[in-house]
Amino acid sequence: MFPQKNHYLHSAIGHPTLREWQSINHQITPKNLMYPIFVIDEENEEQPIDAMPGVSRFGINRLRAHLEPLVAKGLSSVLLFGVISQLPKDDQAFHADSNENPVIKVIPKLKEWFPELLIACDVCLCPYMSHGHCGVLHTDGTINNSLSIKRIAEVAVAYAKAGAHVVAPSDMMDGRVGAIKELLIKNDLVHKVAVLSYAAKFSSTFYGPFRDAAKSKPAFGDRKCYQLPPGGEGLALRSTTRDIQEGADMLMVKPALAFLDIVKQTKQTHPEYPLFAYQVSGEYAMIYHAAQKGAFELKVALQEILLSMRRAGADVIISYFTPMILDWLTLKSKI
Amino acid sequence: MFPQKNHYLHSAIGHPTLREWQSINHQITPKNLMYPIFVIDEENEEQPIDAMPGVSRFGINRLRAHLEPLVAKGLSSVLLFGVISQLPKDDQAFHADSNENPVIKVIPKLKEWFPELLIACDVCLCPYMSHGHCGVLHTDGTINNSLSIKRIAEVAVAYAKAGAHVVAPSDMMDGRVGAIKELLIKNDLVHKVAVLSYAAKFSSTFYGPFRDAAKSKPAFGDRKCYQLPPGGEGLALRSTTRDIQEGADMLMVKPALAFLDIVKQTKQTHPEYPLFAYQVSGEYAMIYHAAQKGAFELKVALQEILLSMRRAGADVIISYFTPMILDWLTLKSKI
Amino acid sequence: MFPQKNHYLHSAIGHPTLREWQSINHQITPKNLMYPIFVIDEENEEQPIDAMPGVSRFGINRLRAHLEPLVAKGLSSVLLFGVISQLPKDDQAFHADSNENPVIKVIPKLKEWFPELLIACDVCLCPYMSHGHCGVLHTDGTINNSLSIKRIAEVAVAYAKAGAHVVAPSDMMDGRVGAIKELLIKNDLVHKVAVLSYAAKFSSTFYGPFRDAAKSKPAFGDRKCYQLPPGGEGLALRSTTRDIQEGADMLMVKPALAFLDIVKQTKQTHPEYPLFAYQVSGEYAMIYHAAQKGAFELKVALQEILLSMRRAGADVIISYFTPMILDWLTLKSKI
Amino acid sequence: MFPQKNHYLHSAIGHPTLREWQSINHQITPKNLMYPIFVIDEENEEQPIDAMPGVSRFGINRLRAHLEPLVAKGLSSVLLFGVISQLPKDDQAFHADSNENPVIKVIPKLKEWFPELLIACDVCLCPYMSHGHCGVLHTDGTINNSLSIKRIAEVAVAYAKAGAHVVAPSDMMDGRVGAIKELLIKNDLVHKVAVLSYAAKFSSTFYGPFRDAAKSKPAFGDRKCYQLPPGGEGLALRSTTRDIQEGADMLMVKPALAFLDIVKQTKQTHPEYPLFAYQVSGEYAMIYHAAQKGAFELKVALQEILLSMRRAGADVIISYFTPMILDWLTLKSKI
Amino acid sequence: MFPQKNHYLHSAIGHPTLREWQSINHQITPKNLMYPIFVIDEENEEQPIDAMPGVSRFGINRLRAHLEPLVAKGLSSVLLFGVISQLPKDDQAFHADSNENPVIKVIPKLKEWFPELLIACDVCLCPYMSHGHCGVLHTDGTINNSLSIKRIAEVAVAYAKAGAHVVAPSDMMDGRVGAIKELLIKNDLVHKVAVLSYAAKFSSTFYGPFRDAAKSKPAFGDRKCYQLPPGGEGLALRSTTRDIQEGADMLMVKPALAFLDIVKQTKQTHPEYPLFAYQVSGEYAMIYHAAQKGAFELKVALQEILLSMRRAGADVIISYFTPMILDWLTLKSKI
Amino acid sequence: MFPQKNHYLHSAIGHPTLREWQSINHQITPKNLMYPIFVIDEENEEQPIDAMPGVSRFGINRLRAHLEPLVAKGLSSVLLFGVISQLPKDDQAFHADSNENPVIKVIPKLKEWFPELLIACDVCLCPYMSHGHCGVLHTDGTINNSLSIKRIAEVAVAYAKAGAHVVAPSDMMDGRVGAIKELLIKNDLVHKVAVLSYAAKFSSTFYGPFRDAAKSKPAFGDRKCYQLPPGGEGLALRSTTRDIQEGADMLMVKPALAFLDIVKQTKQTHPEYPLFAYQVSGEYAMIYHAAQKGAFELKVALQEILLSMRRAGADVIISYFTPMILDWLTLKSKI
Ligand SMILES: [Zn+2]
Ligand SMILES: [Zn+2]
Ligand SMILES: [Zn+2]
Ligand SMILES: [Zn+2]
Ligand SMILES: [Zn+2]
Ligand SMILES: [Zn+2]
Repeated sequence: MFPQKNHYLHSAIGHPTLREWQSINHQITPKNLMYPIFVIDEENEEQPIDAMPGVSRFGINRLRAHLEPLVAKGLSSVLLFGVISQLPKDDQAFHADSNENPVIKVIPKLKEWFPELLIACDVCLCPYMSHGHCGVLHTDGTINNSLSIKRIAEVAVAYAKAGAHVVAPSDMMDGRVGAIKELLIKNDLVHKVAVLSYAAKFSSTFYGPFRDAAKSKPAFGDRKCYQLPPGGEGLALRSTTRDIQEGADMLMVKPALAFLDIVKQTKQTHPEYPLFAYQVSGEYAMIYHAAQKGAFELKVALQEILLSMRRAGADVIISYFTPMILDWLTLKSKI
Repeated sequence: MFPQKNHYLHSAIGHPTLREWQSINHQITPKNLMYPIFVIDEENEEQPIDAMPGVSRFGINRLRAHLEPLVAKGLSSVLLFGVISQLPKDDQAFHADSNENPVIKVIPKLKEWFPELLIACDVCLCPYMSHGHCGVLHTDGTINNSLSIKRIAEVAVAYAKAGAHVVAPSDMMDGRVGAIKELLIKNDLVHKVAVLSYAAKFSSTFYGPFRDAAKSKPAFGDRKCYQLPPGGEGLALRSTTRDIQEGADMLMVKPALAFLDIVKQTKQTHPEYPLFAYQVSGEYAMIYHAAQKGAFELKVALQEILLSMRRAGADVIISYFTPMILDWLTLKSKI
Repeated sequence: MFPQKNHYLHSAIGHPTLREWQSINHQITPKNLMYPIFVIDEENEEQPIDAMPGVSRFGINRLRAHLEPLVAKGLSSVLLFGVISQLPKDDQAFHADSNENPVIKVIPKLKEWFPELLIACDVCLCPYMSHGHCGVLHTDGTINNSLSIKRIAEVAVAYAKAGAHVVAPSDMMDGRVGAIKELLIKNDLVHKVAVLSYAAKFSSTFYGPFRDAAKSKPAFGDRKCYQLPPGGEGLALRSTTRDIQEGADMLMVKPALAFLDIVKQTKQTHPEYPLFAYQVSGEYAMIYHAAQKGAFELKVALQEILLSMRRAGADVIISYFTPMILDWLTLKSKI
Repeated sequence: MFPQKNHYLHSAIGHPTLREWQSINHQITPKNLMYPIFVIDEENEEQPIDAMPGVSRFGINRLRAHLEPLVAKGLSSVLLFGVISQLPKDDQAFHADSNENPVIKVIPKLKEWFPELLIACDVCLCPYMSHGHCGVLHTDGTINNSLSIKRIAEVAVAYAKAGAHVVAPSDMMDGRVGAIKELLIKNDLVHKVAVLSYAAKFSSTFYGPFRDAAKSKPAFGDRKCYQLPPGGEGLALRSTTRDIQEGADMLMVKPALAFLDIVKQTKQTHPEYPLFAYQVSGEYAMIYHAAQKGAFELKVALQEILLSMRRAGADVIISYFTPMILDWLTLKSKI
Repeated sequence: MFPQKNHYLHSAIGHPTLREWQSINHQITPKNLMYPIFVIDEENEEQPIDAMPGVSRFGINRLRAHLEPLVAKGLSSVLLFGVISQLPKDDQAFHADSNENPVIKVIPKLKEWFPELLIACDVCLCPYMSHGHCGVLHTDGTINNSLSIKRIAEVAVAYAKAGAHVVAPSDMMDGRVGAIKELLIKNDLVHKVAVLSYAAKFSSTFYGPFRDAAKSKPAFGDRKCYQLPPGGEGLALRSTTRDIQEGADMLMVKPALAFLDIVKQTKQTHPEYPLFAYQVSGEYAMIYHAAQKGAFELKVALQEILLSMRRAGADVIISYFTPMILDWLTLKSKI
Repeated sequence: MFPQKNHYLHSAIGHPTLREWQSINHQITPKNLMYPIFVIDEENEEQPIDAMPGVSRFGINRLRAHLEPLVAKGLSSVLLFGVISQLPKDDQAFHADSNENPVIKVIPKLKEWFPELLIACDVCLCPYMSHGHCGVLHTDGTINNSLSIKRIAEVAVAYAKAGAHVVAPSDMMDGRVGAIKELLIKNDLVHKVAVLSYAAKFSSTFYGPFRDAAKSKPAFGDRKCYQLPPGGEGLALRSTTRDIQEGADMLMVKPALAFLDIVKQTKQTHPEYPLFAYQVSGEYAMIYHAAQKGAFELKVALQEILLSMRRAGADVIISYFTPMILDWLTLKSKI
């Protein structure tokens, strides 16, 4: 009753090093992490976010102290989200690229403080819109796609001029990547600024706590007409291929955990593009609260999940847990 | 500044029906669900499981009442786990297939009560072993693979003789599927009983609450030498192909959520086999506790996750939430 | 005169972090390295190897001091080659698995000194054969394949019994992996010991300095009738597939540099197996001497080559430069 | 203990002719070689290059005598690099296509002396730029891509008008192949002149000695923002596909040895294009110096490497060793 | 009215060297040729074959003089066919492997005269059968497959013992390759002798002249029940895969010209095996007679056809024109 | 000594019907044939062509009688070639589309006589050019591609206006299909006229007799700079893909016999396009003369070749043997 010789697997996993060799391309290093930061227009504030215990929004004057130890531990890239409460919102997202925009103000500072840090900026209109939608609207409340991508391209170029290395449009309007690239070309910035496309961004309930963090909940309706339906793997393929044809330099899948098959599908189809997975606020909450309740140890569970994301094909993971992970890596905690 | 004509996606998602058409093969019906049940040797007991709020272990005499409304709502398959606390454990797993084994005792009852219900039985030695490991051990504490698969085959055939429609070996010993099939053939049962292989069962921290439920924690060591390392997608390929060559009728990936890329890989590689995804206890806990804390609404989040599993390629989902889901389906709640 | 939008590549490589993201799975960590060691039967000796400046052969009593700092820097696996000059050679390779064999003697010591170190043993007959060929010969000087693989299996099992975690047959006899696995099964060692097959080992002039190191030059003829001809990518495919069918747990391509296309071919065809690339002595010499002559800086060139091997698909690189690389990694030198 | 019948490989490699049949499409003939030549503006000089022992730069009046015996041995193509030291350099690369450019002056001579010789010209701005970069610069020192490809197209067309059969842009600016083709079309030269694109040119330390030969080291900075990062196999895919879409007639991978997997990837993806591999100066140095030091015999090692390049998929190898190889071929030395 | 830039092809074919680069792996060298020879049992005879003008059958004592100049021009392999007219034929093919068989007698001579020449032997029973069929028959005239492959294996091993490097079974009985390999294994010859399988041998009218040459026309019936029907590309796939599984070292397609799609199919499916194409007697006749009648120049047409065979995927061409081709190659005639 | 069960092939070919089932999609019916006709400007002549025994050129007044019996036997399509000897030739191919052009004159007649016959017209300039090349020339004798495709488009549209159902450009200029389609669009004929592209037309010696037939030999030079080199399967891929992108409706490979691998490649790559194979004059001559000399029976050989073309992937065969084949089909001769 012996199995066939090539049916023995135990021989391949009987020593810790053998097990690591089975997943040797799935390590987490600081280069595999991008840290999302909410930058507010109250420059001296640090505002803890209730829905995401352990995460805060920062004013410019609080950011250097927060980031310095992280950069020392290897942090190499950040993703900036602007959040305004003092500045007014309107229906053209005026402050998305005004001189008072907190992101535009903080970029030169960050480049001065941390010259090697890569600075990516989320590009969307919703945080600056009175109605909270990601695009300019027709009078009937539906999206005006042409005006939206024109506006989004302007915002992206404003961040590029302020010094951003990467602009990351999250709005999901049709044609936005092409519009951004075209305006970057016209401004002779195309060779200096990369576009990280939220290529497969799904409409998801796991964004719940983020909306609180970014103060970006729509005043009416939802985003189902421009974000992808969660069952739409075909649309994700179309959307990713489209963004590549329009000039995207890097791709993203969002959310990450319940969409690991989409991560895999994207990497299989476009292995020639760096792939990002965004571990969203609802995922943060699930891990955090279940660990709090003793279902598992947070560190062990998070490491298994990060490994799973890398296994599925993510090159970089955008995670609110980044400071904690950098600590582990520094402490030579093995993942 | 118009996108290329084939770069418009909004047109494909602007109406709820359009969005459903994008994922039209991803419905959840009762046939897409298998309900895991812990059967205990205290025949009149119902024991709530602390680590899994809302889930209980049942004695034989409590099971009919629990299942009757579920079968009425469409429940079509169950997966039985035996748990003993009165019967003694030893190092040969004597009670895994003794006449007093709760699974062996309950199968004829279930067939009598619910003649159309498909009965699957988890097959492993750990719940009946004094040391809690899934196989027979050498004196040095390592697995004796040959004796283990011999014993596992005996247990599987015992459940088959008791009337099980499906035996599901979860032990991860090398060659177990082949050994079971061989013994089924010798007993002329091979045409009556299907093997559902835990083909890609990973060593995971998300099993935590289950070990409490099934009282199956090893007394020493861990299962890393026979369960797959979480980063080992290559081993999952080898293991799945092997089980198919040894005669598996159906395949399983376990855990499900953080392994959706493995679900996809398995379906891509072996589309000709029904694929099961096991939403394990740690996943149950994450969804439950985050919803409790208000991160999202449980029903919406669970529906999104079930949809994701189906999208990734799972034909059947093994879920502790099955009773709740059957309720929604009955209430014609759309997923 | 603007290129198409997706024809801009500069935007993807304009910042150091962007460039790293293009090759983020190609890092070198200690887990990606295996260190080859020549163990001699002069137990107190350390013999520098003329043809490989900076590399020595070690007697058992000199090995602990040599390895201790390397293990401290993260060394996780070694590949042992036995070299005898005191013990006699014969035409059955008696001392390949005698109790006096230096590899058999050193294994228990290594496990005692470095309990977490993975120990792999090269398995061949040539270092112990009076004629220096890798197999038992017919009277006409050609290989007797049947007797050869019988003998090789005995040697492999002897190393396994001595405690080796991995046996690595380098002889290239037909059917050797199957013979080894079969004997491991009979000895109930198959679950504890992995087979790393020199699956694509080519007949190459780049082995020159090694033959001096291992004192393994054939007394007559060459190895062209059992090693693969360098142009034979088809034979490499056949040989790799064959070894997998016979039970190999891991695969190797040797030499590495001039065979990076074979590394890629092997990883493409069998992604489910960890892949090793052996940077052989002639490659060591090329890098060493060209750097000495000022053609380039050794560290920069070696890092580019290691990166290339990883890019081509190698999971682990077997390199004589391992101590130097561990130093760089420890000094946080980026690769 | 007999292997399966199809597991015997020795039968396929037991005779020299059998071994050759395993790699029968990997021969080296004169048609598989392109000879790179440095042409200087000191017309009567032959300048040995220190960093590349055995290689010289030639003035026009020294070239005929150098090439005559090579053409007699079958040399069928050359790749010309202009090097100036008498003519001034500036920031527009004026002398890249002036009437005094040594390449433009030598082309008509070569066509007169050797009417059947195919003449390819490297096209770049760096040898004629005061700053040594491959493109026209912005005032901030970064590349002005639009002006660069305009200028490169002018230079390519100047060589075409002078009689070149092939222009080979090595600059790696975005859109250069398209710009060249467009200008060739406007000049009605497109049917007479082929474009050999340096499609996958990596930033590499192996170019060291060449920079001395071509006097083309940048005065500041490096070429990492326009040459591909060595780990970027995805970028190589993008870059190659782009160049084909822009009209490339032939493709090149550079360097060759440490990029054989890229050679294979390129041939696999675009089998319909002749593929060139450039054995660069650092590769020359490695082989030369290791052979000098006795690590192996130069001829045997070079033949193995040439065979490897052909095996990986290179149709033509650009090599400084060309004169030596032509000698061997003439002497009926087998490769 | 300009085509797209990548729609210009003339630029790729405007110079003879450019055109050669488009087919650079399709050269004909002596290694790409195998010369078929009919060896008769009239040892001092040379018999011109009427149906194949320019081709003769040779007795042993005439062969050395015929081959010496060919070997000098590079001939590296021959394929021997035995033809008997003095020895009797019977229904067991007794003289296929008797000591008087002309092939068995000539092999040692050839090895003595031309030690580097590879000797392949056609293996079939028909030239020695009174009924002229390729296998042993049942009494009803149909093939007895079991007895046939037993007998064919004996013949193959007899040639192997006589010193053949390659045995080439042309009989098309089911299982003959496996039978030969098994008997080679039992005789410990398997590592010394390669099997070249007539894997895709079609029933064809183009064999006409050969039957005269080999005196092998069946006395009754035809070979349609064991040779493949010309339309059966599916059977060719099955047959080729089967022969590989049974241990074939090399593959053949026969006839060649009207089956170039089968040559391509075979190379695509099994690139890891050297592929032979047999230019049969009817093809010889077509080229010969059309050239005689002035339809084209024989040399130009033959070169185009040889090139086509190489392009389709043939590594080696078995051709009666071999002496003429060797002449051209010697005269440096380019192909 | 029994083969594996799936290694028996005789069972699949033991009955004539079984053999036919192996190639059941490879029949020849009249729909699989296109008949090439040379139409001359001597309207009452029938001129036998010496180089193609049995084939004639026809004046308009002789054509009806020749075609009537063929149409009765099922002839469904013809391919017309114009040949002039009375009309003058010049360097703009004036008479290619003049009102006196024999093709333009015969089309309306054919449509009147045989209303259901599909009429295809070869489109080229060479029969009407004083220099005999296929395009308009520069003063230096090279092709002026822009003027050539302009002229070719005019000719094609002239045939279309005369009533041709299909225009078939054989000139191999870059961009001709696109130019024709553009002009058809402008003339509002694009929906009525299909383009059959000579997509893979190779420079071949097998055109010899045709040049006599069509009186189209170039006065100087050859067509190697616009027809594909016979070894260029990559160019054939590029050329076919290009023609499809430019609007080709159907594809052709020419010649057929020595290019069956190209037929297969074309069908594999573009199965969605009807594929034509042109059995050229040299192929006609080979079959004819070898049959005359008794090498084989013409009918059997031709049937095997037609079957091979269909097997390789040709949907329609253009053959001078068409009248003879229609006879066989009419006589219910099976193929
Ligand atoms: Zn938004
Ligand atoms: Zn268990
Ligand atoms: Zn050896
Ligand atoms: Zn340059
Ligand atoms: Zn025969
Ligand atoms: Zn023409």
